[in-house]
Amino acid sequence: MTHVADHPVSTATDAQTRAQNWLSSFETALRDRDIPAAAALFATDSYWRDLVSFTWNLVTVEGRDGVSDLLTDTLERTDPASFETSEPTTEDGGVVTAWFTFETGIGRGQGLVRLTQEEGEDKAWTLLTALRELKGHEEPRGVRRAKGAEHGARRDRKTWADRRQEEAESLGSTTQPYALIIGGGQGGIALGARLRQLDVPALVIDKHPRPGDQWRGRYKSLCLHDPVWYDHLPYLKFPDNWPVFAPKDKIADWLESYVKVMEVPYWSNTEAKSASWSEERGEWTVQVERDGQPVTLRPSQLIFATGMSGKPRMPEVEGMDVFEGDVHHSSAHPGPDAYAGKRAVVIGSNNSAFDICGALWENGADVTMVQRSSTHIVKSESLMEYGLGDLYSERAVDAGVTTEKADLIFASLPYRIMHQFQIPAYEKMAEVDKDFYDRLEGAGFWHDWGDDGSGLFMKYLRRGSGYYIDVGSADLVANGDVKLVHGQIDHLSKDAVVLADGTELPADLVVFATGYNSMNGWVADLIDPQTADQLGKCWGLGSDTTKDPGPWEGEQRNMWKPTNVPNLWMHGGNLHQSRHYSLYLALQLKARYEGLDTPVYALQPVHHTA
Amino acid sequence: MTHVADHPVSTATDAQTRAQNWLSSFETALRDRDIPAAAALFATDSYWRDLVSFTWNLVTVEGRDGVSDLLTDTLERTDPASFETSEPTTEDGGVVTAWFTFETGIGRGQGLVRLTQEEGEDKAWTLLTALRELKGHEEPRGVRRAKGAEHGARRDRKTWADRRQEEAESLGSTTQPYALIIGGGQGGIALGARLRQLDVPALVIDKHPRPGDQWRGRYKSLCLHDPVWYDHLPYLKFPDNWPVFAPKDKIADWLESYVKVMEVPYWSNTEAKSASWSEERGEWTVQVERDGQPVTLRPSQLIFATGMSGKPRMPEVEGMDVFEGDVHHSSAHPGPDAYAGKRAVVIGSNNSAFDICGALWENGADVTMVQRSSTHIVKSESLMEYGLGDLYSERAVDAGVTTEKADLIFASLPYRIMHQFQIPAYEKMAEVDKDFYDRLEGAGFWHDWGDDGSGLFMKYLRRGSGYYIDVGSADLVANGDVKLVHGQIDHLSKDAVVLADGTELPADLVVFATGYNSMNGWVADLIDPQTADQLGKCWGLGSDTTKDPGPWEGEQRNMWKPTNVPNLWMHGGNLHQSRHYSLYLALQLKARYEGLDTPVYALQPVHHTA
Repeated sequence: MTHVADHPVSTATDAQTRAQNWLSSFETALRDRDIPAAAALFATDSYWRDLVSFTWNLVTVEGRDGVSDLLTDTLERTDPASFETSEPTTEDGGVVTAWFTFETGIGRGQGLVRLTQEEGEDKAWTLLTALRELKGHEEPRGVRRAKGAEHGARRDRKTWADRRQEEAESLGSTTQPYALIIGGGQGGIALGARLRQLDVPALVIDKHPRPGDQWRGRYKSLCLHDPVWYDHLPYLKFPDNWPVFAPKDKIADWLESYVKVMEVPYWSNTEAKSASWSEERGEWTVQVERDGQPVTLRPSQLIFATGMSGKPRMPEVEGMDVFEGDVHHSSAHPGPDAYAGKRAVVIGSNNSAFDICGALWENGADVTMVQRSSTHIVKSESLMEYGLGDLYSERAVDAGVTTEKADLIFASLPYRIMHQFQIPAYEKMAEVDKDFYDRLEGAGFWHDWGDDGSGLFMKYLRRGSGYYIDVGSADLVANGDVKLVHGQIDHLSKDAVVLADGTELPADLVVFATGYNSMNGWVADLIDPQTADQLGKCWGLGSDTTKDPGPWEGEQRNMWKPTNVPNLWMHGGNLHQSRHYSLYLALQLKARYEGLDTPVYALQPVHHTA
Repeated sequence: MTHVADHPVSTATDAQTRAQNWLSSFETALRDRDIPAAAALFATDSYWRDLVSFTWNLVTVEGRDGVSDLLTDTLERTDPASFETSEPTTEDGGVVTAWFTFETGIGRGQGLVRLTQEEGEDKAWTLLTALRELKGHEEPRGVRRAKGAEHGARRDRKTWADRRQEEAESLGSTTQPYALIIGGGQGGIALGARLRQLDVPALVIDKHPRPGDQWRGRYKSLCLHDPVWYDHLPYLKFPDNWPVFAPKDKIADWLESYVKVMEVPYWSNTEAKSASWSEERGEWTVQVERDGQPVTLRPSQLIFATGMSGKPRMPEVEGMDVFEGDVHHSSAHPGPDAYAGKRAVVIGSNNSAFDICGALWENGADVTMVQRSSTHIVKSESLMEYGLGDLYSERAVDAGVTTEKADLIFASLPYRIMHQFQIPAYEKMAEVDKDFYDRLEGAGFWHDWGDDGSGLFMKYLRRGSGYYIDVGSADLVANGDVKLVHGQIDHLSKDAVVLADGTELPADLVVFATGYNSMNGWVADLIDPQTADQLGKCWGLGSDTTKDPGPWEGEQRNMWKPTNVPNLWMHGGNLHQSRHYSLYLALQLKARYEGLDTPVYALQPVHHTA
């Protein structure tokens, strides 16, 4: 994800001293409520990212003015103190990087600061502050873990199994979840696990029969596209024999086991039908159907964990009713088994399109890919080596960069300048894989590197689409095994896809790998379109690049933080984000459950509704 | 488990140099095949414990003669080399403790040596050498892990799920397990997981419907008596929110998930009916009943993992047929639910007896315990603090003593002198818990500290019985809530237990918590009594203490190592032993599967048949 070298290059005592001095000055300014002094400790171009610890929000402010604004609003009530380096500070290329811990009035945090010299003084270039736990509500881990056995003899003993059964029987009838999480994929499960540890009554609901079915039900050759070091869930790491790229059924089994082992409250076979907020009662009314029976749930907080990809985007194409073959969106594609010897046309040229084309070809179908606009492709091996290797790899683990540490390093890189760190990695990939790209383009494939050459991960953060991590299917296009056609769809005839230029592509199967709309589409369906508009577009940074319109937002729109719809939250993303951001979302929910004051700094305004 | 201080006290450079010098001298002597020189590097009183790396056995030899004997038999073919310290050496109280790695012709090993000064020279007081892996057969972990996804496009693609299904369908019909493990508790599962990683075709069979039922089916208040740090299975550690003493249903769910996640080949609902060895075909014929259907399995290696406690010991008592209430062995006791308000007599005063008495009392039964001989009791908290804390605790983990490291430290303490390390811990417990013991003895309870005052763990290793880890029930006896009676059973009448002195104990329920016989009883049942005798008694050290007759064996009889019955192996013990020794058993099986030469040094003779 990043090309920045965050492994120690030198561990000079003076780097340590410089970090301690800066932290000490910062703490003094904050203790004295001297906002100008605090702001003066930042460089002219600087970024402070706070995850919940000062702001009860996920916020990045920029420059001294941003720092002043944040502190003016939050300093008094945050009451920060006890800034201390937490491991040896390093210095590399003039940048001092220091890990630290700190406290606020209500919690304990951790952070990472990068110092540069400006006019001979150490100034913060980037600062990350992140809440780790709430005082008095620490998780029962390590020395705080539960004892389990209740020693002594008592006639009213209830066992763990008794209590689990009582909870299961009462939840949704005599007791209500404080937090209802809709969607039981990795996002919902990770959040459910954290809320269990924080003792917040929660419930995850999912329409599938079993946890993990979100993965099981997909095409058979699917494997994770991200490597194992990037994919751990909270609390329980994959064992060190776990494959680099886990097959879908294996990850599905893991998720199912995880739900049980982490005691995530989870209803399978349960679909949310409608939801409405009662201002008067201060709660949601959510109608669900569990095993075909209606149940009404009344949570205080409603969390959508329905997939950051959101609702399938199915273009309105004339002739859908005339076409005599099978036609479906990629998300509903059952896999290739029924299509050996058949003619398949796949509309689209991103991840799903490539994966589906590859699987159809492997199964003996005659496959045509219709590319409508350019796509960015990177080879999986190169992405591992040049994109992720410093943070998420066996070599990172060996260098002491645990997944948790990697997450914080990554979180400490401001979105505003992240593309600058990304560009060199993709330049490197263009160089080492030149033959590959030459062949692809020789076959007529429209390839791009993102609007500013920053590659895959920025595309993911900005628009969540427009790329393919190549695990082999790109070669099928390059060598002509999968036919490539360019153009826009005009209509379907009874046995063909007809393009705008009149080209007819005979087809027994048409797959629309045409992507997804914003997550707030789910809100429109479940609550109402007004609430969806009030919430606004989800995901994206406002980078003013393709499919990510400005203005600049500073953070991902509406994800894991307070939205303009009270008591409504959006959770999603890949396994990394599900793991990392579920902590901050869980702490926000816990604070509200405990009745703590949680004034939100800089609630993000809505600039787009879809 | 041990009172020896194995945490670093000083990390003097000279300790490191002394260790390196000793290892270098040892390596030179071994390379030169100079056995007298190698033996001269050991102290007069010294112990070399080898786990499979030199001996293809678990063996402890004593003194220079023992070293000479071991090397005479094994040195040439072992071809050891590359002895190197693997972390900073420590020195404490005149003893230098050094971790090291080494190689042999076929594998890589790790070890721990303790040096003392004898006549001004560093001599080995204790040496542990342990095989870690076989060259060319390293486990697919870390950088060697499987890739998972098979990149590229191929028309014969088989997915992970396809391969798993094919394996499941063929196993036991068109393919045979090389190793058949009877018993799917923690022992069988841990070994099954290791054999999967080592790519040895194996199968675990168990009569219960689901993995974990071995625990689920027991009395409802049961929790593990050992703490979490002591209980990890191989590969996949409990998360750090895991309770100190896991409730039985929670550990059962973990085992079930573990089987799935680690892909342990496991047949539930399967009972072994008979087994016989064919010398001619070099394989076992094992008749099993799977889901009620007969299946014949033909493994090369047969492993009993049926519980170190072995077969329930049910005394022959007159009047069993006359008694009108319920009567059963503790292992078949269904728990207290049906006995509220009833009169229960529990025969025995060890762990099971106390647990069952406690649960019956909690459920409102009128309970009498019949103590037949003295028992050793320690309070769980004290055992944690003084018995286990240095090796298995949060404080040990914080001090860098991982579970794997603790296992090796523990394995490095020779059985012959282990009691010397144990005695002070129990003296300490006697002191801090004096009030408790006074109250117990005041209530007439016969209490002991083991024949030589070495307490619980030595009783466990020597006889596997004779103690109770108090989690609360001892107080019920001390305060009279559970009545205590001494004596031997004479007979049962229709409604009472009658003791030899004529005492009548009215009873609706009689539980014989009378312990277990040696594991070779399972062999007598499944194979035949001759083979059980050829195998001999299992467990115990030959310490010539109560229920552990001499002569001294040096290691636990028949456990995890070659026995006098070719291709028959015994595996069992608590979670610690299941974890630790499953590695050495798995490596022995792997070597045989790969056709390596595995000459066994010092095969243990049979001194007792039961």
